Amino acid sequence: MIDFVYHNPVKILFGRKKLTLLATELKGLGKKPLIVCGQNHLFKNSVFEQINTLLSEADIPYHLFRGIQANPVLSKVYEGITQYRDQHCDCIIAIGGGSVIDTAKAISVGVVHDYDIWNLFLGKKSIQQTVPIITIPTTAGSGSEVNGGMVITNDFHNLKLGYAHRLLFPRICIADPSLTLSLPEKQTIDGMIDACIHCLEPYLSHQSDNIIFQPRLLELIIHSILKVGTSLRETPQSYHLRAEMLWLSGLAMNGLGTSGLGRVQFELHLLEHSLSALDSAISHGEGLASLLTGWLTFNSVRLSERIDRLNLCLIENQFQLPVRDNTNLIDYFNNLLSEFKAPRSISDIGITSKDIPRLVMHCMVQAKIWKMKHCHERYLADIFAACL
Amino acid sequence: MIDFVYHNPVKILFGRKKLTLLATELKGLGKKPLIVCGQNHLFKNSVFEQINTLLSEADIPYHLFRGIQANPVLSKVYEGITQYRDQHCDCIIAIGGGSVIDTAKAISVGVVHDYDIWNLFLGKKSIQQTVPIITIPTTAGSGSEVNGGMVITNDFHNLKLGYAHRLLFPRICIADPSLTLSLPEKQTIDGMIDACIHCLEPYLSHQSDNIIFQPRLLELIIHSILKVGTSLRETPQSYHLRAEMLWLSGLAMNGLGTSGLGRVQFELHLLEHSLSALDSAISHGEGLASLLTGWLTFNSVRLSERIDRLNLCLIENQFQLPVRDNTNLIDYFNNLLSEFKAPRSISDIGITSKDIPRLVMHCMVQAKIWKMKHCHERYLADIFAACL
Repeated sequence: MIDFVYHNPVKILFGRKKLTLLATELKGLGKKPLIVCGQNHLFKNSVFEQINTLLSEADIPYHLFRGIQANPVLSKVYEGITQYRDQHCDCIIAIGGGSVIDTAKAISVGVVHDYDIWNLFLGKKSIQQTVPIITIPTTAGSGSEVNGGMVITNDFHNLKLGYAHRLLFPRICIADPSLTLSLPEKQTIDGMIDACIHCLEPYLSHQSDNIIFQPRLLELIIHSILKVGTSLRETPQSYHLRAEMLWLSGLAMNGLGTSGLGRVQFELHLLEHSLSALDSAISHGEGLASLLTGWLTFNSVRLSERIDRLNLCLIENQFQLPVRDNTNLIDYFNNLLSEFKAPRSISDIGITSKDIPRLVMHCMVQAKIWKMKHCHERYLADIFAACL
Repeated sequence: MIDFVYHNPVKILFGRKKLTLLATELKGLGKKPLIVCGQNHLFKNSVFEQINTLLSEADIPYHLFRGIQANPVLSKVYEGITQYRDQHCDCIIAIGGGSVIDTAKAISVGVVHDYDIWNLFLGKKSIQQTVPIITIPTTAGSGSEVNGGMVITNDFHNLKLGYAHRLLFPRICIADPSLTLSLPEKQTIDGMIDACIHCLEPYLSHQSDNIIFQPRLLELIIHSILKVGTSLRETPQSYHLRAEMLWLSGLAMNGLGTSGLGRVQFELHLLEHSLSALDSAISHGEGLASLLTGWLTFNSVRLSERIDRLNLCLIENQFQLPVRDNTNLIDYFNNLLSEFKAPRSISDIGITSKDIPRLVMHCMVQAKIWKMKHCHERYLADIFAACL
């Protein structure tokens, strides 16, 4: 095991009725929350009504900041910072998926620093403090509700960049799986793919060759996500499957899986961010799906040992995954994505070879900040070409 | 998954040179630590010298409180509380195994409450606050360095009782696996058995029948502990195996494994505490080993489904454990304990049928506090008889 620090201080309240604890939990954190949320989903399914009642009964005023969309944008972060200040808020409640929570995190930094928040993402500034956040996830996938990472798109310059810091961990996560029951199939699958790739990337890129437990943990999480995800397609209304997926997607990206693995590379994430920066209609999960098998094929020789090992775990039925007619990891993922009606190439989401130079340029910005030296222009262009 | 709260705020600094961060980490917590440690081990292998140098160089005064033994006793807790107060300490560093860390935890409560600390263990008092603790584990097994539990023996009344509270979590754990390199074989095995049973007990007793991931996580941890433990017998000087064992024994008892499982029963722990209360020369690991196969045999019908499932995972080579000539979990453990020269019955550690009434009486005290209603006298006596 390579030396590491593991510290995930998020308090997770997990289960059906945990939302009723919102006012109690909030008391230690602040007196007037900014509630950050998405567009219409919450208002349709009465979650917001429930939260409104809980806060009103506890005499807790709040200010509502609505309208965060997938691939959340910097202009909304600025808007949130202004509203937080104008309304004299002192903490944040983020109710939604990864986009909402990431926006809330960016606001939590912006309201207590004078610099332009975008400088963080460019690696030009750091964080001294943040205001407390409570997350209430309504999707399963990003894991943002229990980690210290965020990804924001600069809609002025069309750049989608990620940033992580220990002060970005939410204080409390109220994870009620029933809030994810009404998720449409596409978002369920997007989340599953994202969570799966959060483990796949460190599994394939880590540097700790003689390590025993951690790669097995990643295998187990990947396998369980795929097993639960497959079952969810049949019974999307199953509370217990939704609970497994919400818990697993948190575990997939909470820092535990990568402990002791040394440096890991999130190259698929790097590549994907350029896709949804190019076209904000491409969701993160879709983008990742469209790159997965092309990227694996491109790297199949270099990563053959680990790909074969994962193959053994996932396909040769070691953990009782449904047996399939193929014994090759790439074919397996290809079939899976096809069954899930997810894109299997970047052509499937409308990208053409003409777009590649722009995608590469985008990647180079993030690769430089993330110090991924092997990601030079030729390499990136070749990968995108392999994913067409 | 059954509703739960998961919150483990311990910051873990894991690796070879992390001890050098001690003074820096201490700065946020206090100005004069009480250093709690065991008998001679630390002084022989220069760990203490290293810590002394680190603190002296940072101009941090401290008071040394030595002499904690296995099965730590209440009288030493009282002594520690007095010394902490007399020496005007304001935080604690615990360097040692589970006994030292548990003593430190009890002191951390005692110094900020007026009541007799033993009332906690009797369920008559609760905790309002504690002083900060840094743990520096020198053994792998109890997991106490990263959790909020403690077990103390009342040496005035010969009672060994456990207690857990969220305020007992250490603030920081500096886990340097090289500090465990010099552990004698017996202590290495004791720790392995303890860690293994920390997962086995919830695995066999939980109430969440349709849960997918968590039992697999427990299987994986149990399997990995046994795999690493077996390898450690051959190469006790392997840093990387020591690192795996230290990390795994923390994971085995940090609250993660039991998340979503509902109520779990630590019955083997209940039984064991009565053994080492009767004879403090019996170590916790030895006591657990002496009960394991008798207890499993006694419960083999009631728990057959889960025993069979674990059997499949551990023995039928799913995870590449060395194949053995038996396909029965109980035989497997019997052979393993025999190979490890660990006791396989309570007779092996000098207990006779005459002791059973006293053991049962001891168990009844803890069973009442832990609300383990099924543990009535007849049941307990029968189990002890089965373990002779």
